[in-house]
Amino acid sequence: MDDKLPGTLPGSRRPGRGPRQAQEIYRATLELLGGGGYDALTVEAVAARSGVNKTTIYRWWPDKDALLGAAIVQSSLLRFDVPDTGTLRGDLSGLVHRLVGLMTGEATSGVVVAALAAVAGRPSLAWLAREFVTDRLAGERAVFDRAVERGELSGSVDPALVLDLLAGAVWSRVMLRQAPVPDDFADEVVKVVLEGCAVRA
Amino acid sequence: MDDKLPGTLPGSRRPGRGPRQAQEIYRATLELLGGGGYDALTVEAVAARSGVNKTTIYRWWPDKDALLGAAIVQSSLLRFDVPDTGTLRGDLSGLVHRLVGLMTGEATSGVVVAALAAVAGRPSLAWLAREFVTDRLAGERAVFDRAVERGELSGSVDPALVLDLLAGAVWSRVMLRQAPVPDDFADEVVKVVLEGCAVRA
Repeated sequence: MDDKLPGTLPGSRRPGRGPRQAQEIYRATLELLGGGGYDALTVEAVAARSGVNKTTIYRWWPDKDALLGAAIVQSSLLRFDVPDTGTLRGDLSGLVHRLVGLMTGEATSGVVVAALAAVAGRPSLAWLAREFVTDRLAGERAVFDRAVERGELSGSVDPALVLDLLAGAVWSRVMLRQAPVPDDFADEVVKVVLEGCAVRA
Repeated sequence: MDDKLPGTLPGSRRPGRGPRQAQEIYRATLELLGGGGYDALTVEAVAARSGVNKTTIYRWWPDKDALLGAAIVQSSLLRFDVPDTGTLRGDLSGLVHRLVGLMTGEATSGVVVAALAAVAGRPSLAWLAREFVTDRLAGERAVFDRAVERGELSGSVDPALVLDLLAGAVWSRVMLRQAPVPDDFADEVVKVVLEGCAVRA
C-alpha cells in the first residue's frame, strides 16, 4: 500500500500519512495568507486558527514556508477535478473555466492573489510555484494523452507550453488587467490555441 | 502642438509637460520599488534618491500611487519599441522576445516582479495595471492592424485576447514557474497562437 502524499516538498519531513487535521491546518494557512499576505502568516497564527497544537504543526513542517508549500499543493480548496469530456476542446475549455473560477471565486481569489504575490516577490519561494505546477501538470497531462490517443493532437505538442498559454491568459485577464471575463472567454482562448488565429493559406 | 504626455492617470495633475527631471524621478521610483517592494516606496525616498525636491514631486503627483502609476507607464526602463518586421509571425515573436527580456533582464526583472506583486496584492492599484496594459496595447495594436491589411489576420481577431495569451505565457513560464526559457520559446508560443496545436481535420 502506497500511502505517501503526492508531491515532495523541500524541508518537509513527511511520514506515511499526513496529520489527521491536515486539511484544517491547510485551510487556516491559506485563510491567513489570503487575509493578510505572506507576512501575516505565522505558524503560531495557524495553530490558533486551526485549533491544532503548534508542536504538532512543527512536527510535520519545519517552518512556515514548508507549511505554505504543503497547503498550496495539497489543500482541497485549490484542487479541482480534471475534466474528461470526450474532446480536447471540451477538456481545455473546462480547465480554463476552473482556473477562472479559482481566480475569481469568493473563497479562493484572495488566496490565489496572495499566493501569486508571495511567490512573485520571493525567489526563495520559487520551488513552491514549481511544485504546484508540477503537481497539477501531472494530473492535467491525462487531457493531452487522451487527445493524442483520439488523434486530436500530435504527440509532439508540449502540454506545459499549452498550459502556459491558457493559464497565463486567465492570469493576464483576471489578475493583471483585472478586466471582466466574458462568458465566451474560455471558448475563445481555447479556439485560438487549438485552431490558431492566422488566416490559413 | 500636442504636448500632453500619453496616458491619463487618476489623481495626477498633469500640465502640458512633465517636469524636466521626470525620467530621473521615474527611475528612482522603480529602483525603490524593485529594491524593497511597495512598502519601501515613499515620496521622501524618491526625492532623496533622484535629488529632486519633494515639493516638486508633490506638485506633479499627489501621492505615491500616482507617482508609481506614472513611472510604470512612462518610464523608458519598461518601454520597448514595437516590432515591424513585415510579418505577423515576426512581429509577435519580437514582442515575446521583448517581454522575456523585460521579465529576465538584470535591470528590469526585479522591477517587474515588484510591480506585479504590488498590483496583484492590492485592488486599489488595479487601475495601474489597466493603465499600463491600455497604454501598451495602443502601441501594439499596430502589429495587428498591419497583419489585417496584409491579409494575415481576420479583422475579427481580438488583439487583447492574443496578447493575454502571449504575455500570459511568458509570465507563467518566467514569473510563476521560474522555469528556463529555451531559445525557441517565442517561436513556439507564437506558432501555437497563429496555427493552433490541434491536428487539422
